[in-house]
Amino acid sequence: MSALTEQGERARVAARRLNTATSAEKDAALRAAADALVARTDEIVEANAGDLEQGRSENISEALLDRLSLDPARIGAIADGLRQVAALKDPVGEVLDGWTLANGIEIKKVRVPLGVIGIIYEARPNVTVDAAGLCLKSGNAVILRGSSVAHRSNTKLAEVLRDALEESGLPADCVQLVADTSRETATELMGMRGYIDVLIPRGGAGLISSVVENAKVPVIETGVGNCHVYVDAAADIDKALDIVVNAKTNRPSVCNAAESLLIHSAIAPDFLPRVGKLLADAGVELRADPASRKILAGAGIAVTPASDSDWGEEFLDLIMAVAIVDSLDNAIAHVNEWGSNHTEAILTEDLSSARRFCAEVDAAATVVNASTRFTDGGEFGFGAEIGISTQKLHARGPMALPELTSYKYMLWGDGQVRK
Amino acid sequence: MSALTEQGERARVAARRLNTATSAEKDAALRAAADALVARTDEIVEANAGDLEQGRSENISEALLDRLSLDPARIGAIADGLRQVAALKDPVGEVLDGWTLANGIEIKKVRVPLGVIGIIYEARPNVTVDAAGLCLKSGNAVILRGSSVAHRSNTKLAEVLRDALEESGLPADCVQLVADTSRETATELMGMRGYIDVLIPRGGAGLISSVVENAKVPVIETGVGNCHVYVDAAADIDKALDIVVNAKTNRPSVCNAAESLLIHSAIAPDFLPRVGKLLADAGVELRADPASRKILAGAGIAVTPASDSDWGEEFLDLIMAVAIVDSLDNAIAHVNEWGSNHTEAILTEDLSSARRFCAEVDAAATVVNASTRFTDGGEFGFGAEIGISTQKLHARGPMALPELTSYKYMLWGDGQVRK
Repeated sequence: MSALTEQGERARVAARRLNTATSAEKDAALRAAADALVARTDEIVEANAGDLEQGRSENISEALLDRLSLDPARIGAIADGLRQVAALKDPVGEVLDGWTLANGIEIKKVRVPLGVIGIIYEARPNVTVDAAGLCLKSGNAVILRGSSVAHRSNTKLAEVLRDALEESGLPADCVQLVADTSRETATELMGMRGYIDVLIPRGGAGLISSVVENAKVPVIETGVGNCHVYVDAAADIDKALDIVVNAKTNRPSVCNAAESLLIHSAIAPDFLPRVGKLLADAGVELRADPASRKILAGAGIAVTPASDSDWGEEFLDLIMAVAIVDSLDNAIAHVNEWGSNHTEAILTEDLSSARRFCAEVDAAATVVNASTRFTDGGEFGFGAEIGISTQKLHARGPMALPELTSYKYMLWGDGQVRK
Repeated sequence: MSALTEQGERARVAARRLNTATSAEKDAALRAAADALVARTDEIVEANAGDLEQGRSENISEALLDRLSLDPARIGAIADGLRQVAALKDPVGEVLDGWTLANGIEIKKVRVPLGVIGIIYEARPNVTVDAAGLCLKSGNAVILRGSSVAHRSNTKLAEVLRDALEESGLPADCVQLVADTSRETATELMGMRGYIDVLIPRGGAGLISSVVENAKVPVIETGVGNCHVYVDAAADIDKALDIVVNAKTNRPSVCNAAESLLIHSAIAPDFLPRVGKLLADAGVELRADPASRKILAGAGIAVTPASDSDWGEEFLDLIMAVAIVDSLDNAIAHVNEWGSNHTEAILTEDLSSARRFCAEVDAAATVVNASTRFTDGGEFGFGAEIGISTQKLHARGPMALPELTSYKYMLWGDGQVRK
């Protein structure tokens, strides 16, 4: 039995206990964990310093070092996150439906935990705590497989969580970190049928597609966002200028930022120079198709020719692909061909165009006259988010506590047999 | 581009059209298909005769020949099934949730089709029509990959459905049958990411596990049922006798039939000889652990020693594994170790035992004091069923129209940007 299978076995046992843990027990453990994170800040910062030192010696980027870094303020915020999760409604036990058969059998459809959740994630050590908190609240044991870059930090954070669980009377094995961060353990985790009920990869497109391609356990695909903003012929220009700039520049490194701008040919001569100037002033590199390039260049705005690969790219940076389309149909076709089924926006005052776009575009979220940046568990009011699903099975869009559950049917009879 | 990829491409195009088809359009097509099946009964019977002839020449079993066989009455029943599906409520467009953000953005969570569904199934040709009908009603295009045994029948049935679709103004490609029934096409179907949104295998345990192991597209695991009946110390003996016999013998070849009987040691000396006699009289072979064997043999009832593999076996036949357990805990542990997460029953008048069994047993359905045979879309009142899911992701238990859908979030704003 490999180290990982052993962890899987322990996770199953812990999941059985968690399955019937009360909300009060789980919330007490979450609050104890939050207190412990604050109380043990020094230990965490010290472990993190080791990761940072190694990161610097390996010349990882400043951006990555920043995402890796933990200080007392960040640790306090992570602890507050756990307290917020404790304050959310427990999804487990919710009666989703119920009825009585003609023969008197009473049926209840009840929300239950999924069981054991595997999370494979990249640098940020806060994911260790955030994911563990959401899994615990929803009654699931979790096996966390973080990256080597953050391993000292993750190990310490997991230790603090496990200690707090134990002191609260729940099994420490509700939260387990995979000790070996080699590629092999990720692959092994993907194959652990019978131990892992669902695997959620959190990270870049490379990680997600590797998990989706190789996993034999059920996977929820998250987070790759090649989001489009389509500016229709009937768009309100002032609203559209605000929305396009916001969708691209508000936070370019996240999955709900816009990557592509489609503009109806009827409005392009007027709209494109104005939006192009605003984007260029905000430091955005424009990669444009021939028609839009002509207009942009004609207005004296710096522009790069778009290559075919730009249409499908999630830049996560101040880069935007720009194309002119000559109809709503072509806008929808372009989005459905190149989009990643995350968030797609149409800017228009024409009701029929808005309705068609929403109905025909295949995405977790369609947006009319607002920024793509609103597809987010926090903005939606979910209170927490484990990721944004871009698949259609099980959960779509921002995933919070209910999306980390399954259900079971409970039948209560008094001797019924089938004729 | 392979023949299958081409079918996948056509299915995607058809799915886009179906995605916005109205309920009236879909229901008209379903009723037209039902009429066409009846009108073209002779053609179908003739095609079926070819399959039966080949089946006989290959010496397939009488049971299989019976499942393969179509006559006017069966074709009429299949057509009626389509009419019943037409009469069901359309799941697409249901608003599952909705709210307004503080900034005024209105969010609706709306049920939408999954897109393209793949079905891999074994002998019964009625699945061709049943599955196509459910997929069509829920707005999904379907790619059907049946078995070679029924290929002539399936080809004719698909032709009738496609003609009816076309005459009703929907794309024929909403329903496609894979022409090549070799193992290779099944494997190819399992890998068609980007074409198939979910693959549902319908058939024996071998088929299901092959799909689950090899698929790269999302799968819904269905139908393997190693269901237990646990007779608690506090069971009502008369009810228990009825229920055990019904669960085992009412229809032994289906997934919700009971395969294993667990009996609390306190009640075994009284209960086991009585239930053993009833089961033996009904032709059931009992495969018993040492403790129950002693009691059964002592009462003069024929009994076979159980081997370890019997505990995990889905017999689908008049065979039942029997074991004595000395506590509720051990009953639950046995069920969770050997069950297939389908349907698990406890027979008891003790409320606390019933509640613990329902909470701690990991299955799509738990049953108190009734037959396992009630886990069924028809019995549940769903009006139709595409299969019974034994996994926890997306859908669990009997799957009907809503389980063949996903959802999307639609955001309606008037210029909102994110701060």
